[in-house]
Amino acid sequence: VTTGMKIGIVGLGLIGGSLALDLKAQGHDIWGVSRRESTCQMALAQAVVHHASPDLSSLDSAEIVFICTPISAILPTLTELATMLDPTAIVTDVGSVKGELVAPATDIWPRFVGGHPMSGKAEAGLSAATRGLFQGRPYVLTPLPQTLPAAVSQVTELIEQLGSTLHVTDPTAHDRAVALISHLPVMLGASLLQACAHSPQRSLAENLASSGFRDTSRVGGGNPELGALMAQYNQAALLAALADYQAQLTQLTQAIEQGDWQRVQAYLTAAHQQRPAFVSDRPL
Amino acid sequence: VTTGMKIGIVGLGLIGGSLALDLKAQGHDIWGVSRRESTCQMALAQAVVHHASPDLSSLDSAEIVFICTPISAILPTLTELATMLDPTAIVTDVGSVKGELVAPATDIWPRFVGGHPMSGKAEAGLSAATRGLFQGRPYVLTPLPQTLPAAVSQVTELIEQLGSTLHVTDPTAHDRAVALISHLPVMLGASLLQACAHSPQRSLAENLASSGFRDTSRVGGGNPELGALMAQYNQAALLAALADYQAQLTQLTQAIEQGDWQRVQAYLTAAHQQRPAFVSDRPL
Repeated sequence: VTTGMKIGIVGLGLIGGSLALDLKAQGHDIWGVSRRESTCQMALAQAVVHHASPDLSSLDSAEIVFICTPISAILPTLTELATMLDPTAIVTDVGSVKGELVAPATDIWPRFVGGHPMSGKAEAGLSAATRGLFQGRPYVLTPLPQTLPAAVSQVTELIEQLGSTLHVTDPTAHDRAVALISHLPVMLGASLLQACAHSPQRSLAENLASSGFRDTSRVGGGNPELGALMAQYNQAALLAALADYQAQLTQLTQAIEQGDWQRVQAYLTAAHQQRPAFVSDRPL
Repeated sequence: VTTGMKIGIVGLGLIGGSLALDLKAQGHDIWGVSRRESTCQMALAQAVVHHASPDLSSLDSAEIVFICTPISAILPTLTELATMLDPTAIVTDVGSVKGELVAPATDIWPRFVGGHPMSGKAEAGLSAATRGLFQGRPYVLTPLPQTLPAAVSQVTELIEQLGSTLHVTDPTAHDRAVALISHLPVMLGASLLQACAHSPQRSLAENLASSGFRDTSRVGGGNPELGALMAQYNQAALLAALADYQAQLTQLTQAIEQGDWQRVQAYLTAAHQQRPAFVSDRPL
C-alpha cells in the first residue's frame, strides 16, 4: 500500500475537503489550494489538510493532484497547473461530466485521468466535508485509450484507500449513464412541478400532495444552478436520455389512451421488476 | 359532538380497519363487514370492531356506512346495500377516484357522499390498520349539487373526529388534482425505469444509481395492479395531466436543445421555488 504521497487538492469544498480528510488519514501529505484565504485558514484550523495556500504553485512538487473545483474551472486550473507540475505528476478531477472534459484535459496534461466520485450530501462547502464520504460508493474513472496505465493504477490505488467501488468506462458511456440516473430525474421532477404549478387545480393539488409527490419531485426541485450546469455540460447525453424517456412515456400514454389496461399493467410490472436492479429502498 | 352512532364499515383492509379503530375510539358502535370470515374473526379478536359479519344485511340498521372495498366493488356493494338500508342512512366511500363513481352512486342511493381520505402506508390489509392514520391528513369530500347538505354535514363531523383536514370540491376537480399529484408521478417514474432498463448503458446505470434515482422512481416502481387501476378509473384526468406534463417537458427539452442555459435555469428556478407550496422534505 502506497502511503506518504504528496497529494494536492484544488478546491476545498465538500468533495475536496472530504478527499483531504480521508487521504490524510491514510498517511498522505495533503496540500490544499483554495482561492479564498479564509477557506485555507479554516482547512488548516480543522486539520483537514497539512498545508493550505491560495497559490497553485504550492503544488509544484505534488505527485498527484485532485482538481475539485466547479466543472467550469477544471480546464483553466489544469492549464495553469501544467506550467508548474513535474512532468511525472498525475492529475485527476472529480467533475460529474466527462465527455467534453477528458480529451482536452489529456491534450493539456497527458497524465490526466478523468474521475467522478458518486458521493454527495445536501450540504455544500468545506464545513460539510466529512470522513468516509466515499466509503462503499461508486467512483468512476474514464481513461482514454492513450492514457498511461500506470497513471490509472495510481489513481485506482487511492480510490481503493477511500473504500469506494471502482468502475472504469469511457467518458461517453459515463455521461450517458449519469444522464439517465442523475440528470434525467431532475428534468422530470422539474416538469412535474411546473405542470402542477400551472394547473387550474393547483390550489387543491397543493393541499393533497403527499409523500409520492414529495419523492418524485425532490431532485427536480433542487439546486437550479446545478441543474442548469448539468444540462449545459452534459447536453448531448441528456438529450439522448430525454429522447429515450420520451419514447417510453409515449408508449405508456398510448396504452392509457387506448384503454389497454393489460398493456398498462404489463408496463408497470416491468418497471416494478426492474427497479431493484438499480436501487434499494433501504437508506443509501 | 355526535357519539354512539351505529356505523357500518364494508371492507376491513388498511383504510376500513383504521377507520374502525378511530371511530370506535370516538364512542361509536362499529359494525364491520368482510367477505372473508377469517378477516371478520381477526377484526373481532383485535377489537377493531364491535361486531363483524360477512353478511351485508348485518348493516340494515346502520346510520352511516363507509364502503372501503376496492374501487371496482364500490357500486356493486352500494347496489346491494340499497336493498337493505333504512332510507335515512348515509353512505360514503373511500375510493381514490370520484368522477365516474359519484353520479351513478348518487343515482343508486341519494344520500351518498363521495369521499377520499388521502392517507396510506406501504403495507396493506387489516394487519396494517392503525389508530391515527387520518390525523392531520387531507380528507376530500365530493358532494354533487343535489347532495343533501345534512348528509355532507354528518360525514364532515366524523371526518373531524378523525382529525383529518377537510377539503370539499367537485368530483372532476378532485380527479384532476389527484391525477397530477398522485397518478402522474407513477407514470413518470415507471417511464424513467423503463428508459434506463432499455438503455445500452443499463449495467453502468445500475451501478451508479443513487438516492436521486431512488426517490424519483419510488412510486413508479410501486404496485403495478394499483397503478393500472388508477389509470383505468382516472383515465380522462390522467391523460389531461400527462398532456400538461408533456407540454412542460417539451418546453424544457427545447431550451436544452437550443443551449439556452438562462432559460433552463429560469425553468429549474421556478420549479425549485414552487415546490415548497406542495410538499416539505420533513417526514409526512
